[in-house]
Amino acid sequence: MIVTVASNKGGVGKTTTAIHIAAYLQQSAPTLLVDNDPNRSSTGWSLRSENGLPFRVVDVNQSLKVGRDFEHVVFDTKARPDKEELKTLAEGCDLMVIPTTPDAMSIEALMSTVDLLRGIGGAKFKILITIIPPYPERDGDDARLMLEGSGYPLFASSIREAKVFKTAALRGQVVNQIKGPRAALCWEDYVKVGEELIR
Amino acid sequence: MIVTVASNKGGVGKTTTAIHIAAYLQQSAPTLLVDNDPNRSSTGWSLRSENGLPFRVVDVNQSLKVGRDFEHVVFDTKARPDKEELKTLAEGCDLMVIPTTPDAMSIEALMSTVDLLRGIGGAKFKILITIIPPYPERDGDDARLMLEGSGYPLFASSIREAKVFKTAALRGQVVNQIKGPRAALCWEDYVKVGEELIR
Repeated sequence: MIVTVASNKGGVGKTTTAIHIAAYLQQSAPTLLVDNDPNRSSTGWSLRSENGLPFRVVDVNQSLKVGRDFEHVVFDTKARPDKEELKTLAEGCDLMVIPTTPDAMSIEALMSTVDLLRGIGGAKFKILITIIPPYPERDGDDARLMLEGSGYPLFASSIREAKVFKTAALRGQVVNQIKGPRAALCWEDYVKVGEELIR
Repeated sequence: MIVTVASNKGGVGKTTTAIHIAAYLQQSAPTLLVDNDPNRSSTGWSLRSENGLPFRVVDVNQSLKVGRDFEHVVFDTKARPDKEELKTLAEGCDLMVIPTTPDAMSIEALMSTVDLLRGIGGAKFKILITIIPPYPERDGDDARLMLEGSGYPLFASSIREAKVFKTAALRGQVVNQIKGPRAALCWEDYVKVGEELIR
C-alpha cells in the first residue's frame, strides 16, 4: 500500500510518523520511504543512523527507479501543501495520514487541510493525534472528543509525547531500536496505528 | 527505461523535449510522463489538449501509484537543480537528457551542470542541442563542434528551431499531430533522438 503523511503545519510529528509507519510496515513486507519534503528530514534521519534504518529511504527523484521492488511505500511530503498539491498527493496514495498535535493552532491548521481534502472527490485520509502530553493533562482527550464530534476519520490510537522520539531522530533510529519501557510504549503506539492501517 | 530531462536554464526546450521523447517511446511501449517541474508545464501542455496526448501525464505525487504499469517513464524536472538534486535525479534514471540551445549563455549554464554531474560517480547523461536556427546561421554547427571538442556525450541528432513547437504547446499536441512538412521535419528530429535513446 502507499501511505502518504501530510500536514498543514510543521512540528506535528510528520517525519516521525513517516519513519515509524515505515518501520511497522517493513515488518510484514519490503517498505520504501520516499522523501519528498524539501527539508529532507527523513533522509537526514536515515543518514544519522549508524547501522541503517530497517527500511530503505530514497529521494523522490529516485523513487520510480526503485519503487517497483517494494510492497509498501510511505511518502513523506513537504509541510503546507496547497490545494493542487493535496489533490495530487491524495490521488497518489491509498491513504493519507494527517498528524496533528492536540493544541488549538494545530487543529485549526488541520481543519483547513481537511476542508481542502473534502473538496477533492474521493480523497481518503485519516487524522492521527500526536505528541499528546501525559495525564493529568487532558489535551489528548479534549482534541479527540472535538475531532470525533466533527465526524472526521480519526485513528483510534494516538501517539504520546516522549523525549525518546527526539533521541531516535538524533540517533537515526526507530524507537523500537532503543531500550527501555518508555521507548517500548512509544513503539506500541505506532504498532497500533500500523494495525489500523493494514486492517 | 527511465529518461530524465533536466537543464540548468529555462527556455532550452526542456518540456518540449520531455513531451516529444514520451510521444516517441509510447509508440513502442506504454509510457508515463512524470511532471516534477514546479511550473507544471507538462501538465499544462496535457490539459490544453483537446483529445489528450498519446501518453499519460501525472504529477510526481501520483507517480508511484501508477508508475508500475508503464514500461517507460520520462521525468520532467524543475530548471536549475542544485548539486544534491542532480545527484538524486541522475541516480533515479537510466539516462539524463540535458537540452541546451546553441547560444553562449545556455552552453555556459550547461557546462556548470555537466561539471556537477562529473563530480557524481556514474551519472549517465547526454546533451541535446535544441532550437537551432536555420541555415545560413551556423550556431548549431558551432555549438556541436565546441561540445564535441569538450568530449561530452552528445546526441548525434539535434532539434531545429520551429514555430510549430509553440503551436504544439499551445494546442496541447505533439508535433506529429500537426499537419504540414515543417511539423513532419520537427517530429523526425525527435524520432532520431528517440532512436538514439533506445539503441
